[in-house]
Amino acid sequence: MTRKSVYLFEEGRADMRMLLGGKGANLAEMTVIGLPVPPGFTITTEVCREYQQTKTLSPEVLAQIDEALAKLEQKMGKKFGDSTNPLLVSVRSGAPVSMPGMMDTILNLGLNDETVEALAKATGNERFAWDAYRRFIQMFSNVVLGIPLSNFESILEEHKHRHGFTQDIELQAEHFKQIVPEYKAVVEKFTGKPFPMDPREQLMAAIHAVFRSWDNPRAQVYRKVNKVPDTLGTAVNVQAMAFGNMGEDSATGVCFTRNPNTGEKEFYGEYLPNAQGEDVVAGIRTPYPIAHLKETMPAVYEQLYNMCELLESHYKDMQDIEFTVERGKLYMLQCRNGKRTPIASIKIAVDLVKEGKITKDEAILRVEPDKVVNILHPAIDPKAKLDILATGLAASPGAASGIAVFDPDRAVALAGEGKKVIMVRPETSPDDIHGMVVSQGILTSRGGMTSHAAIVSRGMGKPCVVGCEAIKIDLEARLFTVNGRTIKEGDVISIDGATGNVMAGEVPVVDPELSPEFRTLLEWADEIKTLGVRANADTPKDAALAREFGATGIGLCRTEHMFGQGGYHPERMAVAREMILAETKEERLAALEKLRVMQREDFYEIFKAMNPYPVTIRLLDPPLHEFLPDEEDLAIEVALLREKGASGEELKAKEELLRKVRALSEMNPMLGFRGCRLGMIYPEIYEMQVRAIFEAAAQCNKEGMNVEPEVMHPLVGIVTEIAFLKDLTDRVAKEVMEEYGVTFKYMVGTMIEVPRAAVTADEIAEYAQFFSFGTNDLTQTTFGFSRDDAEGKFLRQYVDQKILPENPFVSIDRRGVGRVVEIACELGRKTRPDIKLGVCGEHGGDPASIEFFHNVGLTYVSCSPYRVPVARLAAAQAAAKARGAKAGAGTV
Amino acid sequence: MTRKSVYLFEEGRADMRMLLGGKGANLAEMTVIGLPVPPGFTITTEVCREYQQTKTLSPEVLAQIDEALAKLEQKMGKKFGDSTNPLLVSVRSGAPVSMPGMMDTILNLGLNDETVEALAKATGNERFAWDAYRRFIQMFSNVVLGIPLSNFESILEEHKHRHGFTQDIELQAEHFKQIVPEYKAVVEKFTGKPFPMDPREQLMAAIHAVFRSWDNPRAQVYRKVNKVPDTLGTAVNVQAMAFGNMGEDSATGVCFTRNPNTGEKEFYGEYLPNAQGEDVVAGIRTPYPIAHLKETMPAVYEQLYNMCELLESHYKDMQDIEFTVERGKLYMLQCRNGKRTPIASIKIAVDLVKEGKITKDEAILRVEPDKVVNILHPAIDPKAKLDILATGLAASPGAASGIAVFDPDRAVALAGEGKKVIMVRPETSPDDIHGMVVSQGILTSRGGMTSHAAIVSRGMGKPCVVGCEAIKIDLEARLFTVNGRTIKEGDVISIDGATGNVMAGEVPVVDPELSPEFRTLLEWADEIKTLGVRANADTPKDAALAREFGATGIGLCRTEHMFGQGGYHPERMAVAREMILAETKEERLAALEKLRVMQREDFYEIFKAMNPYPVTIRLLDPPLHEFLPDEEDLAIEVALLREKGASGEELKAKEELLRKVRALSEMNPMLGFRGCRLGMIYPEIYEMQVRAIFEAAAQCNKEGMNVEPEVMHPLVGIVTEIAFLKDLTDRVAKEVMEEYGVTFKYMVGTMIEVPRAAVTADEIAEYAQFFSFGTNDLTQTTFGFSRDDAEGKFLRQYVDQKILPENPFVSIDRRGVGRVVEIACELGRKTRPDIKLGVCGEHGGDPASIEFFHNVGLTYVSCSPYRVPVARLAAAQAAAKARGAKAGAGTV
Repeated sequence: MTRKSVYLFEEGRADMRMLLGGKGANLAEMTVIGLPVPPGFTITTEVCREYQQTKTLSPEVLAQIDEALAKLEQKMGKKFGDSTNPLLVSVRSGAPVSMPGMMDTILNLGLNDETVEALAKATGNERFAWDAYRRFIQMFSNVVLGIPLSNFESILEEHKHRHGFTQDIELQAEHFKQIVPEYKAVVEKFTGKPFPMDPREQLMAAIHAVFRSWDNPRAQVYRKVNKVPDTLGTAVNVQAMAFGNMGEDSATGVCFTRNPNTGEKEFYGEYLPNAQGEDVVAGIRTPYPIAHLKETMPAVYEQLYNMCELLESHYKDMQDIEFTVERGKLYMLQCRNGKRTPIASIKIAVDLVKEGKITKDEAILRVEPDKVVNILHPAIDPKAKLDILATGLAASPGAASGIAVFDPDRAVALAGEGKKVIMVRPETSPDDIHGMVVSQGILTSRGGMTSHAAIVSRGMGKPCVVGCEAIKIDLEARLFTVNGRTIKEGDVISIDGATGNVMAGEVPVVDPELSPEFRTLLEWADEIKTLGVRANADTPKDAALAREFGATGIGLCRTEHMFGQGGYHPERMAVAREMILAETKEERLAALEKLRVMQREDFYEIFKAMNPYPVTIRLLDPPLHEFLPDEEDLAIEVALLREKGASGEELKAKEELLRKVRALSEMNPMLGFRGCRLGMIYPEIYEMQVRAIFEAAAQCNKEGMNVEPEVMHPLVGIVTEIAFLKDLTDRVAKEVMEEYGVTFKYMVGTMIEVPRAAVTADEIAEYAQFFSFGTNDLTQTTFGFSRDDAEGKFLRQYVDQKILPENPFVSIDRRGVGRVVEIACELGRKTRPDIKLGVCGEHGGDPASIEFFHNVGLTYVSCSPYRVPVARLAAAQAAAKARGAKAGAGTV
Repeated sequence: MTRKSVYLFEEGRADMRMLLGGKGANLAEMTVIGLPVPPGFTITTEVCREYQQTKTLSPEVLAQIDEALAKLEQKMGKKFGDSTNPLLVSVRSGAPVSMPGMMDTILNLGLNDETVEALAKATGNERFAWDAYRRFIQMFSNVVLGIPLSNFESILEEHKHRHGFTQDIELQAEHFKQIVPEYKAVVEKFTGKPFPMDPREQLMAAIHAVFRSWDNPRAQVYRKVNKVPDTLGTAVNVQAMAFGNMGEDSATGVCFTRNPNTGEKEFYGEYLPNAQGEDVVAGIRTPYPIAHLKETMPAVYEQLYNMCELLESHYKDMQDIEFTVERGKLYMLQCRNGKRTPIASIKIAVDLVKEGKITKDEAILRVEPDKVVNILHPAIDPKAKLDILATGLAASPGAASGIAVFDPDRAVALAGEGKKVIMVRPETSPDDIHGMVVSQGILTSRGGMTSHAAIVSRGMGKPCVVGCEAIKIDLEARLFTVNGRTIKEGDVISIDGATGNVMAGEVPVVDPELSPEFRTLLEWADEIKTLGVRANADTPKDAALAREFGATGIGLCRTEHMFGQGGYHPERMAVAREMILAETKEERLAALEKLRVMQREDFYEIFKAMNPYPVTIRLLDPPLHEFLPDEEDLAIEVALLREKGASGEELKAKEELLRKVRALSEMNPMLGFRGCRLGMIYPEIYEMQVRAIFEAAAQCNKEGMNVEPEVMHPLVGIVTEIAFLKDLTDRVAKEVMEEYGVTFKYMVGTMIEVPRAAVTADEIAEYAQFFSFGTNDLTQTTFGFSRDDAEGKFLRQYVDQKILPENPFVSIDRRGVGRVVEIACELGRKTRPDIKLGVCGEHGGDPASIEFFHNVGLTYVSCSPYRVPVARLAAAQAAAKARGAKAGAGTV
């Protein structure tokens, strides 16, 4: 029995992807469910595998192709090479997995000197027919015969030049009639043979070309890099062409089963009569709304409408449909899940559940979490006319307008006068934070998605555009230039952190709103997810926002801001410096005492805002020199003072300060004297913080709240560290409870952010009641990457060149850092089976990372307040996927 | 049947340590083998455990104590409380493991108002007897009765003051007779009872005190920290006192079974007639050589000599023996393995094998590898008279003299004039290396054993003393002061890197020599060890030295020195800068071409020096900014030039350089753009180096040598890095072999120095043919410790406070970093069972680390040339231990 090597579309199914390729299986599925797709057939991947050995097509295969072709002619009522009603086909490759690098599509195969005339007559458009013919020759000659395109382009150019034309569109039928013979001459010159006039010969050559292209170098490289087996092979699809420009009974259009902007359930779309798809796209003629078709071709409209209903029911999602009417006959050219706005994606998913078409799991999986974050921020009014200056990287969503300001101190001054400012810098550093705090948004000309500006802005929930290289900043002159225009300090600009656009002037902005459907979707997400979602919040304001977005706790409350870092409490910086520069323990204790009172107040307010949810407080983490002036600036100041012969007093004070700054300065601060190492060497600092936490908690509990603080010690790597710090914490807790005459629960835990903590997690878990993975630092130490340095120096190239699949500071590196997290989880649970496991790095808000954290079995993730809804959705998706749910069975 | 709770010494054995404690078991062993130890008995640890519950001694135990005491009196011919011949005893605690924190020894128990007179008469030394009595009261009152010592000290002071004395030695018997009643009054005041006169009551109180001390807070903390079970308990040892000062028929002395300085087999020692141990130590009277005893007490001498022979045979090692002759009767007070010089330790170990007393394995285990390194360097003549100024940390062995110089440029200048210089700095940095290169030795006032100066000096094999805080350096005045003396530039000083001594003037030095015994021992080591020992060597000179010391390959040849770093090739720094600052790829390639020719020559010489052993070459590793001027210095220069209104040209050039330095500068260079990341972004740099390596190898092989280079890519963390670099290396190898018309073997491997490389070692091993653990960087990344910063900021306290058991940069952290190494080995072998595994960090020369590396199954360790013999010995010890050998069965 002969093996079946050629399948008519009606003989295939969606699940025959391995045999028919992705495209072939999909065309078959559409045909089978009754869609009027232009008929055709698919030559299987088995034939391709055979072809790689034999370099030829067997007589059995040739016979099956001829048989299928005959059926196709019959079905279409057209014939290959017919001088009045010629069959034209497209030939396309289609492997089981999407795979660039192989042969492109060939359209209009079947045209020759005779059939072109028939096409001209049939369409009443001689120019179209001859243009199609010369395009076919060009395409076929290039991809099948291997003749460089430049040989044809030069002929085209020469003709345009001869007539003084500048654009192809100016060439008419008469010109193409002259060009075609010249094209054919090129072919004859290169191949020694005339261009094939026989459509069957054309078809066979094209099929050979598809199979040959499976082994071309580009495809080979692609398969090697993406680990696609060479034995997979590609299928070949041969499909009848359909034309919408064969007269007033023909048309072409696009429609959607629901409104892709709003998600409303309505039949939506547009079409052009007597036109081809290109005309719709080109926008030369104004298309009619789809409702108009009802009047001009009621039967076709009726058929199309029913087809759309059928399609949505079959695929269980909003469909985007391309159709052509050829002489009153409707053809489906394409049908796919329709692109939609984030808002529409939510409404459609929720409506489909209400209509009983999909499950809640499926609805959850239909919405892209990363897109959702954009609708939680103010957005530019979609109707606004924009004066776009340049486009950078969309680093933190939201839109903002304000006057351009080029340094942080000016930003603070101008904001103090009540002005709205946008801070513009080449890039930002911790020295700029006070300026960022008072700005509406941040724009930088350098840096990537994980640059300082991007991270800090996302944390603050402020719009930010980074790496906008088109703008040339002159800090001294306080201006930037872009494409010949100049923006000076004080000029109003706007930025859109969702698109990366930078605009001149003020733009109208619409406020975000959580639609009822979105609320419903998030409620479903909460039902499905098992991972808790907390927020990183350092202030009562952030805590309130986090609750608004559905956070059920704070996973990371950083305390360095309470020491004045980051410009949040400028007045406290002085006290922190007193503490750091203290000459005696007494002086240090006095400064700490002042800080204790301030911090107690902070913690009280945060506990209150979050009550009754848990709050995890991380003790002081950054190196102390971050609270002091910059060493290089100070050294220059001293050198200049010496040069000027300044008074001994002034010079001496600066020299002394420089000496202290130098004593605290470090070669690699990331790996230096920070985190719990501070608490080990200066226990009085941690003791002060722990006391402030417990005093605030005691006060809250006395007032009837139910506050159970979670004290988190950062950067632990050695069991003796956490043993000592647990003792210190327990002792202070006992003292405070006695002083306040109240008892309450609390937890003591540690961050896991150095690899040693992970491989000794069994020991550490003897003392730590919870682990919180600091995946930012853990990524730095596991890779040996300094985030501050890597981004600008090599990381971007690593991602561009696929040395790394993605930036490991954006999405967790499962293979390496993820493995370290797994080791820590396994060892931690071995000692303490019920250990609470969380994550509080940037990855806590990244959907791909959240899926990993779900799979590892963490208790919660913590992320910036604005990403809490994203995380809720992503956590629900992870849970749904883990129990086998898919976005929808029929999805193509 | 009653449990046996009290053991006479002759009833015990060495292996009854758990029951009798370490001290009790040892006293028993000595008694059993026939040594005349003063008799006594041990109360078991079981009694202690019972005591912790009951807080009392059972009647059975009391009965057994009385019985043992009676036997003791009988054996000694003395009686407790006897007014002519009183028994005096010592009481000591002794747990199964050595454990500080418990009760101290009580000596002379049994003295009271009566027996003191008997003792005075018996010794003919009234002062001794009364001094012993008042010391006994003081000791007993403090440790048994808990009375603070200050109460007794003030009485003693008052008496000295009254007589105008300044030292205790001036007090005579009459004074002590007045002091004793005052002491007793203190006891009565504190306890409400008179000082116990009954020796049995004294003994019982002392036994109770020992058992109580098991649970005192200091002991509890010690057990907690060191994980000693609370249930272990301590034993109590009661032993008769013996006195060497009871007349001319008494004596006390110390002897050794072999010469502890040279190791020669001779009976060696000294003694004093009619004296106590203290007199020998105090050095007031000149002792006689032991041979003299033969004349004065021939029988005793004979007995002692035979006993020494017996002891050495029993313990199979040279013994250090303390003895006392009380009225013609010889007593062994102590016997232990004798301390000895490193040279003696080697000779004794080798001689003992030749005498058939121990095995080669045992001999290997008898020599401390860490001490051996000192005898490989020039040493100060032991007979020299030294003018010691101060003592610092002995950071790198060897002795050197030269003129003091305070900055590296002056050092280079003065060395250029043919002067020998010692560079003196507060601490050193990479900027000082050219000065270190030309110096005889290095002295710093700051820094520890892993400071820059220490590490670089050890690598260079130069004497170095660090952290010598007593010297106060004034860099501007070019001098240092120490204890009121001033050493100026040009003054001759000497340093001893084996002791840390700093001396004024030149000192006579003796050259090291590898004694025949040492050569023999190292040959045995090579027979036993399975771990290969290679050297870290960057120059032909180092390579030759390494071979001299027995290295069988180079495990790490750093190439950055060949770029001019470290002052080895100052002329190349300019070329390296050309390469780094190149504006175009052409400029960079031109500079690289120059470097290629230079490096090829270097590699050729190194291959030749090491032929036929393997050479592992690490490609460029440090960040590029290390080859450029210091950013802060440059910024100050620019600021001053601006201030002075310097010419536009000069300022512009400096500003441009500063801009480039800033562009390359990094927040955390340790985690930055270095290692193979350089080779990934600038493949032309690595390609140049690989080409130079293969060209040199090709040349060598053409000349008949058998060179198989091992190309090592540093800092790999991602499989795609090594995949790319392996391809690059293989391609260049093929090209060079074709060009030279020669083929040879080579290997491509990687360093494992970031945790990600360890957890993905299975992937990496698909491309890497060998791993070399860079344990310095791996320790930094696994702990999240920057070595440059940690040492001065917190690491020393961590070690002092036992937060870490030892400095992990000196001895590998087995629990954490070691675990990461194990993971990498397991995964690497999974992919490539025969993978070559080495280590090339500082740990490669540390004996404790070497034992770990042996156990993990590495192929080789690599260390600085001077440590090669140390490593050979340590590797042999590890192999011997692994197969169950011990230093010697009888060792106590």
